[in-house]
Amino acid sequence: MTIKGLQLTSLVKEDCTLEIALAEVEMPEPLPDEVIVRVEATPINPSDLGLLFGPADMRTATMSGTAEWPVISAQIPENLMPLATPRLSKAMPVGKEGAGVVVAAGSSDAAQALMGKTVGMAGGGMYAQYRCLKVSMCMDLPEGTTPAQAASCFVNPLTALGMVETMRTEGHTALVHTAAASNLGQMLNRLCIDEGIDLVNIVRKPEQEALLRDLGAETICNSTADTFDNDLTEALVKTGATIAFDAIGGGDLASRILKCMEVAANQSSSDYSHYGSDVYKQVYIYGRLDKGPTILNRDYGVSWGVGGWLLFPFMKKAGAQRITELNARIAAGLKTIFASHYTREVSLAEALSLEAIAEYSKQTTGEKFLITPHSRT
Amino acid sequence: MTIKGLQLTSLVKEDCTLEIALAEVEMPEPLPDEVIVRVEATPINPSDLGLLFGPADMRTATMSGTAEWPVISAQIPENLMPLATPRLSKAMPVGKEGAGVVVAAGSSDAAQALMGKTVGMAGGGMYAQYRCLKVSMCMDLPEGTTPAQAASCFVNPLTALGMVETMRTEGHTALVHTAAASNLGQMLNRLCIDEGIDLVNIVRKPEQEALLRDLGAETICNSTADTFDNDLTEALVKTGATIAFDAIGGGDLASRILKCMEVAANQSSSDYSHYGSDVYKQVYIYGRLDKGPTILNRDYGVSWGVGGWLLFPFMKKAGAQRITELNARIAAGLKTIFASHYTREVSLAEALSLEAIAEYSKQTTGEKFLITPHSRT
Repeated sequence: MTIKGLQLTSLVKEDCTLEIALAEVEMPEPLPDEVIVRVEATPINPSDLGLLFGPADMRTATMSGTAEWPVISAQIPENLMPLATPRLSKAMPVGKEGAGVVVAAGSSDAAQALMGKTVGMAGGGMYAQYRCLKVSMCMDLPEGTTPAQAASCFVNPLTALGMVETMRTEGHTALVHTAAASNLGQMLNRLCIDEGIDLVNIVRKPEQEALLRDLGAETICNSTADTFDNDLTEALVKTGATIAFDAIGGGDLASRILKCMEVAANQSSSDYSHYGSDVYKQVYIYGRLDKGPTILNRDYGVSWGVGGWLLFPFMKKAGAQRITELNARIAAGLKTIFASHYTREVSLAEALSLEAIAEYSKQTTGEKFLITPHSRT
Repeated sequence: MTIKGLQLTSLVKEDCTLEIALAEVEMPEPLPDEVIVRVEATPINPSDLGLLFGPADMRTATMSGTAEWPVISAQIPENLMPLATPRLSKAMPVGKEGAGVVVAAGSSDAAQALMGKTVGMAGGGMYAQYRCLKVSMCMDLPEGTTPAQAASCFVNPLTALGMVETMRTEGHTALVHTAAASNLGQMLNRLCIDEGIDLVNIVRKPEQEALLRDLGAETICNSTADTFDNDLTEALVKTGATIAFDAIGGGDLASRILKCMEVAANQSSSDYSHYGSDVYKQVYIYGRLDKGPTILNRDYGVSWGVGGWLLFPFMKKAGAQRITELNARIAAGLKTIFASHYTREVSLAEALSLEAIAEYSKQTTGEKFLITPHSRT
């Protein structure tokens, strides 16, 4: 029996256009350690948009084809084409994570054991009706977990856990998070409450402050308030947080956080050094909500670092054994700490409507799309 | 017998003025593990200027007192006073390193063994005629080393060695250095040649390029050249350097270096990742020749870090045992790899003339002052 289904791919063409389309693909015969999963639910994460849109200017997007077989085209500014060199002329499958039901399995015991089960999945290419992948990329779920509950079992949960893990590994005891009212931020808030870790939530709007307060967050600072630097310094003195994870990236927020950390560190020390406190302060940038340059004022001594942070390098550093342990924790917490909420469900074709693209590419706090690949357009 | 001598101190006063002056101080009786050194030579390093001038605007400097007992006063902008809070109203001795002859020694064997010997010194307060300090802060020198040769035995040599050590510890195999024609840069160049390490020297002027070329440097890029980004990328492909030490700090040089490292890394890889290469790229900022903000364009994937780097945190990380090993290497190389050159010798009082201050505060490449505290004004 041949299994066939739709797959979404994103293609950068030599003529400076991006093309996103659906195609019907046939699943291979699964190898002994592989299974074929009927994908029932897969989220659109901010981290999926990079591969989906590439360096294209999505304001130029147009649709051709039909509602059932839409083709989205958009212009790529010529000066950004070098960024896409490695993916040029290759139709890239998209979608970092998802969940579904195992409908075929290879000959190994591990594969056979998953037959008929609902599993979470990592590994890319999830914006499809079927996905053939290794057993090791599947998360075995507790009885009664639905695909929608498990669709976001990987990116956000492992990112939240990775932040806490990084905090501990690098010798910090509390942490700061920006864009803290996001889906990820809410999850991190639940995780930190569960683990008794002090979390300083930085938001940009009063309603985000209220939302987090309702979710039990104790320490929230609004970066648009006139009193922000004082508020944050006070929060840092109280919590002792010396590491921050920043989803914004551009502007001077990272620099302001480092400065407040330095002022907080000096408040609890009487030693003078011209080079500032010897308390090491770190900001990891993991998102780019502001694509502009990061402005570092360097008025916080010499014990500081700013760097990129991402799930995959973290996983590589943590090692397979540790990731397996974290995955077990995620599976057990998918309905509580690691639960995700969606504001809209779309089919694969609907995800390629101009209206939907305009909406999910805004990355509005609290809004999240779930693709259900087998629903009808 | 009482030992008395001049000492230079820098004082931040509550009325927003900085005062630098000389005073006669009496040496204490040395403790068992201490010696008293007659300071014969002590350099003015860029890293001494921070403590010497504090946050004062030295364009406002005036001199009072006499040529023999000068007092320098300068205004501190009120908004910068908080930076000086920890040192407020304390007369701070200045001068990170120096060399001289041991003229009195405590009762321990180690102290007695140094009696009459020429030693290098670290530990601050070297802008003085005498300095009482622990034996552990003295560097025993090979026969025939003069105080002038040993005066800079600490800051630049240990910084150059620390850069190479950091490069190795953090898994890099070649390095980039900016402001590479400086005294430190020339030393690093000699060290890297000696160790067979590929060094990419970044300079800003053709004459600096020529100077380094004459000193045997192979790879030199001029950051003011139109072809700089291409030149640097080529140099990075050739050398495989993925760590840089930057003395400039402000502007977008750190960002351009990271970008060139990323382009170089992608040239030698065929794997595509939307998040950029997984080659980790690091820039350490250790100076502030440009005091403006650091501008990071973040167009180099997610595997990158920028941070402060300084000798003291490095020493703490490396540990006492390793620093002792490095010091032995410095002592043996003071006339070769770790030699320093001075363009002018001044007395303590001459170091406080407005003319001299104007000159050494410029931090002109290749110019370096040596204070000889016992010379007559």
